[in-house]
Amino acid sequence: MTKTRIERDSMGELQVPVDALYGAQTQRAVDNFPISGKPMPTQFIRALILAKAAAARANVELNQLSAAQGKAISDAAQGLLEGDFMQHFPVDIFQTGSGTSSNMNANEVIATLASRLLEAPVNANDHVNCGQSSNDIIPTTIHVSAALALHEQLLPALLHLVQVIERKSEQVHHHVKTGRTHLMDAMPVRMSQVLNGWAQQLKANIGHLQDLLPSLQSLAQGGTAVGTGINAHPEFAARFSRQLSQLTNVQFTPGKDLFALIGSQDTAVAVSGQLKATAVSLMKIANDLRWMNSGPLAGLGEIELEGLQPGSSIMPGKVNPVIPEATAMVAAQVIGNDSVITIAGQSGNFELNVMLPIIAQNLLSSIELLANSSRLLGDKAIASFKVNESRLKEALSRNPILVTALNPIIGYQKAAEIAKQAYKQGRPVIDVALEHTDLSRSQLEELLNPEKLTAGGV
Amino acid sequence: MTKTRIERDSMGELQVPVDALYGAQTQRAVDNFPISGKPMPTQFIRALILAKAAAARANVELNQLSAAQGKAISDAAQGLLEGDFMQHFPVDIFQTGSGTSSNMNANEVIATLASRLLEAPVNANDHVNCGQSSNDIIPTTIHVSAALALHEQLLPALLHLVQVIERKSEQVHHHVKTGRTHLMDAMPVRMSQVLNGWAQQLKANIGHLQDLLPSLQSLAQGGTAVGTGINAHPEFAARFSRQLSQLTNVQFTPGKDLFALIGSQDTAVAVSGQLKATAVSLMKIANDLRWMNSGPLAGLGEIELEGLQPGSSIMPGKVNPVIPEATAMVAAQVIGNDSVITIAGQSGNFELNVMLPIIAQNLLSSIELLANSSRLLGDKAIASFKVNESRLKEALSRNPILVTALNPIIGYQKAAEIAKQAYKQGRPVIDVALEHTDLSRSQLEELLNPEKLTAGGV
Amino acid sequence: MTKTRIERDSMGELQVPVDALYGAQTQRAVDNFPISGKPMPTQFIRALILAKAAAARANVELNQLSAAQGKAISDAAQGLLEGDFMQHFPVDIFQTGSGTSSNMNANEVIATLASRLLEAPVNANDHVNCGQSSNDIIPTTIHVSAALALHEQLLPALLHLVQVIERKSEQVHHHVKTGRTHLMDAMPVRMSQVLNGWAQQLKANIGHLQDLLPSLQSLAQGGTAVGTGINAHPEFAARFSRQLSQLTNVQFTPGKDLFALIGSQDTAVAVSGQLKATAVSLMKIANDLRWMNSGPLAGLGEIELEGLQPGSSIMPGKVNPVIPEATAMVAAQVIGNDSVITIAGQSGNFELNVMLPIIAQNLLSSIELLANSSRLLGDKAIASFKVNESRLKEALSRNPILVTALNPIIGYQKAAEIAKQAYKQGRPVIDVALEHTDLSRSQLEELLNPEKLTAGGV
Amino acid sequence: MTKTRIERDSMGELQVPVDALYGAQTQRAVDNFPISGKPMPTQFIRALILAKAAAARANVELNQLSAAQGKAISDAAQGLLEGDFMQHFPVDIFQTGSGTSSNMNANEVIATLASRLLEAPVNANDHVNCGQSSNDIIPTTIHVSAALALHEQLLPALLHLVQVIERKSEQVHHHVKTGRTHLMDAMPVRMSQVLNGWAQQLKANIGHLQDLLPSLQSLAQGGTAVGTGINAHPEFAARFSRQLSQLTNVQFTPGKDLFALIGSQDTAVAVSGQLKATAVSLMKIANDLRWMNSGPLAGLGEIELEGLQPGSSIMPGKVNPVIPEATAMVAAQVIGNDSVITIAGQSGNFELNVMLPIIAQNLLSSIELLANSSRLLGDKAIASFKVNESRLKEALSRNPILVTALNPIIGYQKAAEIAKQAYKQGRPVIDVALEHTDLSRSQLEELLNPEKLTAGGV
Repeated sequence: MTKTRIERDSMGELQVPVDALYGAQTQRAVDNFPISGKPMPTQFIRALILAKAAAARANVELNQLSAAQGKAISDAAQGLLEGDFMQHFPVDIFQTGSGTSSNMNANEVIATLASRLLEAPVNANDHVNCGQSSNDIIPTTIHVSAALALHEQLLPALLHLVQVIERKSEQVHHHVKTGRTHLMDAMPVRMSQVLNGWAQQLKANIGHLQDLLPSLQSLAQGGTAVGTGINAHPEFAARFSRQLSQLTNVQFTPGKDLFALIGSQDTAVAVSGQLKATAVSLMKIANDLRWMNSGPLAGLGEIELEGLQPGSSIMPGKVNPVIPEATAMVAAQVIGNDSVITIAGQSGNFELNVMLPIIAQNLLSSIELLANSSRLLGDKAIASFKVNESRLKEALSRNPILVTALNPIIGYQKAAEIAKQAYKQGRPVIDVALEHTDLSRSQLEELLNPEKLTAGGV
Repeated sequence: MTKTRIERDSMGELQVPVDALYGAQTQRAVDNFPISGKPMPTQFIRALILAKAAAARANVELNQLSAAQGKAISDAAQGLLEGDFMQHFPVDIFQTGSGTSSNMNANEVIATLASRLLEAPVNANDHVNCGQSSNDIIPTTIHVSAALALHEQLLPALLHLVQVIERKSEQVHHHVKTGRTHLMDAMPVRMSQVLNGWAQQLKANIGHLQDLLPSLQSLAQGGTAVGTGINAHPEFAARFSRQLSQLTNVQFTPGKDLFALIGSQDTAVAVSGQLKATAVSLMKIANDLRWMNSGPLAGLGEIELEGLQPGSSIMPGKVNPVIPEATAMVAAQVIGNDSVITIAGQSGNFELNVMLPIIAQNLLSSIELLANSSRLLGDKAIASFKVNESRLKEALSRNPILVTALNPIIGYQKAAEIAKQAYKQGRPVIDVALEHTDLSRSQLEELLNPEKLTAGGV
Repeated sequence: MTKTRIERDSMGELQVPVDALYGAQTQRAVDNFPISGKPMPTQFIRALILAKAAAARANVELNQLSAAQGKAISDAAQGLLEGDFMQHFPVDIFQTGSGTSSNMNANEVIATLASRLLEAPVNANDHVNCGQSSNDIIPTTIHVSAALALHEQLLPALLHLVQVIERKSEQVHHHVKTGRTHLMDAMPVRMSQVLNGWAQQLKANIGHLQDLLPSLQSLAQGGTAVGTGINAHPEFAARFSRQLSQLTNVQFTPGKDLFALIGSQDTAVAVSGQLKATAVSLMKIANDLRWMNSGPLAGLGEIELEGLQPGSSIMPGKVNPVIPEATAMVAAQVIGNDSVITIAGQSGNFELNVMLPIIAQNLLSSIELLANSSRLLGDKAIASFKVNESRLKEALSRNPILVTALNPIIGYQKAAEIAKQAYKQGRPVIDVALEHTDLSRSQLEELLNPEKLTAGGV
Repeated sequence: MTKTRIERDSMGELQVPVDALYGAQTQRAVDNFPISGKPMPTQFIRALILAKAAAARANVELNQLSAAQGKAISDAAQGLLEGDFMQHFPVDIFQTGSGTSSNMNANEVIATLASRLLEAPVNANDHVNCGQSSNDIIPTTIHVSAALALHEQLLPALLHLVQVIERKSEQVHHHVKTGRTHLMDAMPVRMSQVLNGWAQQLKANIGHLQDLLPSLQSLAQGGTAVGTGINAHPEFAARFSRQLSQLTNVQFTPGKDLFALIGSQDTAVAVSGQLKATAVSLMKIANDLRWMNSGPLAGLGEIELEGLQPGSSIMPGKVNPVIPEATAMVAAQVIGNDSVITIAGQSGNFELNVMLPIIAQNLLSSIELLANSSRLLGDKAIASFKVNESRLKEALSRNPILVTALNPIIGYQKAAEIAKQAYKQGRPVIDVALEHTDLSRSQLEELLNPEKLTAGGV
């Protein structure tokens, strides 16, 4: 039996665990929402607490709070972040659609701590939540937490992955392999060209994510209840952004139109769409790695990924491409998370979107999963794979499609006849071409040299 | 310049092409919705016309229409179906969410034709639409058109595909190949086991689709405007279903609860979910085929699909797995169609879902695409592929994972050591096992015979 | 610093926390997959442990394990379930796609406990995993955990919700309200008709879920590595299912085709599709509730949901429909979870799908979320709402659309003129009808009585 | 019976309709892919033909084609565009995944026409397709057609919608209405604030789409078969982009990395994600309009949308919000189209994505649908709605939530008590506040004036 104390809010009294920092409204939410058993993401709560500190500082500047009150709130918030703060934030993800329960949870916990610091009552609504509404601070917290997670986690992880790929690309530049289109043997490519293609895919994604940062760093704060800013000082939005920028070293700005930022979650939808695009890129890269690694004998066997763990509980000696698999699963999850955010984004009505908690949860989940798997993919798969040169060579030399290089000289139709005959008779294409063209063996060796063919040109 | 005549409806007068069978409301819809440029699906219009005939007959039975009126309407409807009826149904898919414009289009066209037959005025609303509302006849038409398309197209096509696979399975039973898990070499399987697995996947889907038929054949008709059946005879639903069953040879029944059938599109959502599941199965089968066919030299090269067309505009002699590719694209499209239906299904409010036209369009598109691609996949890919026995044999014999069969005798740990050594040294696993176990060569040959290993057991 | 001991597996030695029940392979997985920080779902691990107990018993019956070994394994498994077993299962969801790491985690933990009970070594691979492969036991565990969660959680919760709705329906039967189609005033409906429609939506979903149970209770077990059943006794599948049925009181059966059950995850895709359909139904119901409750003054104000918590951190006295909002968010999440499972289901190749862990995670999440929110929706929203009779009455009496009831007497065209005039002049439709028809006031009162209009008929 | 002639390609002879401009490979594709019955989108074929003209000109510059050949090809292509060119492009959307059949269709049709112009043979592969592969020209055509559709259709349509909204916003600036959060009465807002919020949502989407244009205008051309550029002149990519820019007045550039542009479809995925985000915004706006228009009597009744057509086949006088409904359906379709593109984007392997035709189809469909519905939404819904001032006023004055404005003076707790009492007793909040505070009536009238409350601030 947990010992309890009695707390009250505008709806009346109820029992709260005796040593809980939170109060009545948090407790009501805990009681009301036994749904997923999972709290809001740590990154979200952290950003919410930071926003409370920034709000307190801005309110002091604008004389909405006394310096002592403001300092107590700000110190309480920052103190919280230094410890294991999640224990004080038990509210379920599936709660009120505005996230009010999480906002009040933060208000109550910080009010308790600030009251202790100040040795005088600090009120959750009137002081900690001063000049704010859940309807602006929760959208703000979504933007802030996602922006911080992009800056601190995902963008560095993607850049790291690009660097690993580019470094590897230099190492494997000399390897030429059979290109594949429709999964069928096609003209040869350099291993470095393959890897540079992946790097470019990721760089494009990084660029597109960066293009969205100004929108994401633009905040709903100051709109309060419905976007009009009722009960907030007219300068609150600007002061808040400045304070938060100082606290986080990320440049936040007041939103251009607070109605749009409260009534919709369009920025989250746009960012999630781009995270999904990044997931799609990673899926492609992970699958290419898996197939290049397939075999070792009955597959393509072009590379050998580092062995990280026994692959099978029944088949001894089996080693599986576990990191690309985990990456592919991350990609699938991110695509699904984007579906949630899409549904949530289009479910808003009038002055407030009320699927904010799941937008936060799915957006932050996508960022974290992509960040962690990108690092692993770089460090435990791409950096360390070995190239199976003999397999590459063996396939290259027999490939009748090399005849493509003769098109400009003998025309597509005749080249097709040579390729078909070579394949049918199991003979080197060069031998068949010798019979059907006026080209000499040395000319053909020059024209059909796989390595040269990767340099393109006519 | 199209010559026009003047028509009027409850909103006033407007110009209609002089020889159009439709009237004012169809014309308003044509003018209002220049969005996709695409009309409702033929299957949908066909079912709508059939429903109008069934309604006329039921209304005659119930004395809501005179026998002559009813006959004129029914004959007009059936006459329409014998010709190129789609020219009379120009309304865009993206129209009013209830599909009222398509319903009035049918009412107007049939009224015109019936008036000619009867040589007396037949009214679109009062006679052709008698006892009906768009709100029941459009949901009814979605169920009817989808049920007919399942019975006439998809279920036979899937059964055909199953038969083709099972026939092929018998033909390829003797081929044993390297199984692959995680894309890595695993224990051997028979080609027939692979195909039987595909057949069973499809049979399960067929079963799940059939389980949904009773729901799909249960109709909203009789609910009229809001589900209460206002202005329809109490026996209309039953008579209508009986008449429609006669016209179509499919057993339709009145819905248990007409409010649910009008206010939601849950059955369409459920059916679409199962079509999506079928698409997922086809994607898996199509991809297995593509990979088995990959190469011919630098891929797995296990089978050779029938060559249907030159594969490349630049690479002569290339042949690609175009039918499995088309099938995979169908699967992707069906998955997307299901997203549309999911969004549409959850967007309903109160007594009517108002995304009916896109539910119809996407549901019927999914059924048709799956049906057509299933037949092609059977006839132009599975029925005709050849097995590359030499490639299968070559890979099988070298596979160190066969050592798995020794686990019960020597334990997983020791088996792992043998497998690793065999792979590292590039030696047959049987030779390494001979050195590290007490088993004789003949015992090992017996235990590690790939063909026998496909029979399972200890 | 955690104290460690040294463990080894087929890849060599590594450090494991000194008091961990698990061994080397679990530790490798912990090290390899720092991705989501979240373990596999409790329901999944519980089913996996149950499956291990069932497998041990089956192996004893078939003389693959000694009675003492089997008992030790079975007792160890069941002992685990009585405590806080999740502490021993730290492997991340995003791991090897086969779930081998979770399987080996279970094998290792149970081997440790069984060795203690037996006071002799019990081997994780050779004994606990006897006759099994991750490739059959993980698909089996997905089916078993989902089936148990459906039987124990979701189906009872949905039935409970149906009962709550049907009970409420009786209580509110006498209330008549304005029906709405296209959100516009339409013909009247009874509040009970609305609720019965919801109940029927849910009953249809329950039925469709039950139709899928035989597929879900059909297991991959016995297929081992690739479906052939290599290293499992030929009777293992049947014995295992029987043992598991006894342990769980749910009837499990061996799968018809083990290749299909290992190579694909079609059943999970189908079940998820139906969970999504259920989510779509709940979204519709939750939104109807939210809109009926909207206001109280500037909205529809038809009902008043129970007040559960203060609705706003800034707007005093505000009470929000938090349970329907949480339900709608659950629906959105389930739709997204289904996207993940769809991607995962179509990503399989050859003999094994390798997105099993996220299929498990998203499937079980969907079941749990739907179950918990369905109960809440019934108990904290539907059971306790109050009807605002005066608002219903006020809107009903002024509704010009009631004129629909006169169609069969005066025709659609004339009825439209009356309705338009009534709305334009703000007069009761009955007064306008009196002027434009031959009907008497008492006839009109009879014909236009909203309550009678809900009974349908002509 | 269609009269036929005999044509041949590298696979042999076949019958082609005698007057078809296309040849053997198009005919094979027509025969091979009877799947959807729908050809590739007109916009796609148009861009493909333009690309052929640009390629011919570039090849003349680089001496790969004679001036006469190049001119014939270029003239043939441009001549085609002046007529009803789609009759010559019968190949189904669901075809080979590379779109080779459509490429060869264009090559063959243009070769036929160019041969007539030149009065000498122009070869489909060697001349029209000179320096190209389907693998670069089809990805190029996707980018070009989507870029043109954005420039010509969607961006102007969205800008038009923004202008309509902003013009309307000025007209309705004086109307103040009850804000709604969680669908519940909240603090007042100006009608203009609502509309400006919508405009800002759209402007953000326009900005995000524009950010993606450089990626979209970056082309795969020059990569030919696998990205290496085999058989294309090294300067071909640059010359081609310049020629195409001249032909289209849109600035196209050679891609940075052709392997990424051929092996993936990441740009299409990113653009589609942003189109989906735009759809989400339109869904929100359409739903707000639908709800504001709801009623007229039993709904919110805040505005009256222009009546465009009779709303019901059974309920006379009913007028429905058909344009917002069509818009919402467009949004749902675009979300589903994005699912298709996401699946297609992640299904690529190695040097070529082979779901190109459905990427083209779904991307262009999304752009067209959004463009057409955005114009309609502006012109036929937003420009012409009327505001129901009396309904707005009535709701505003009674709203107890206005008490929020007293928070800074009396605190949240006391304000909550006043609001609750006012609502419970059905009294104006000002009267209750007079009793419970020290504020005078004139002070309260000033503080609680709805119009002033929309100006925010403290």
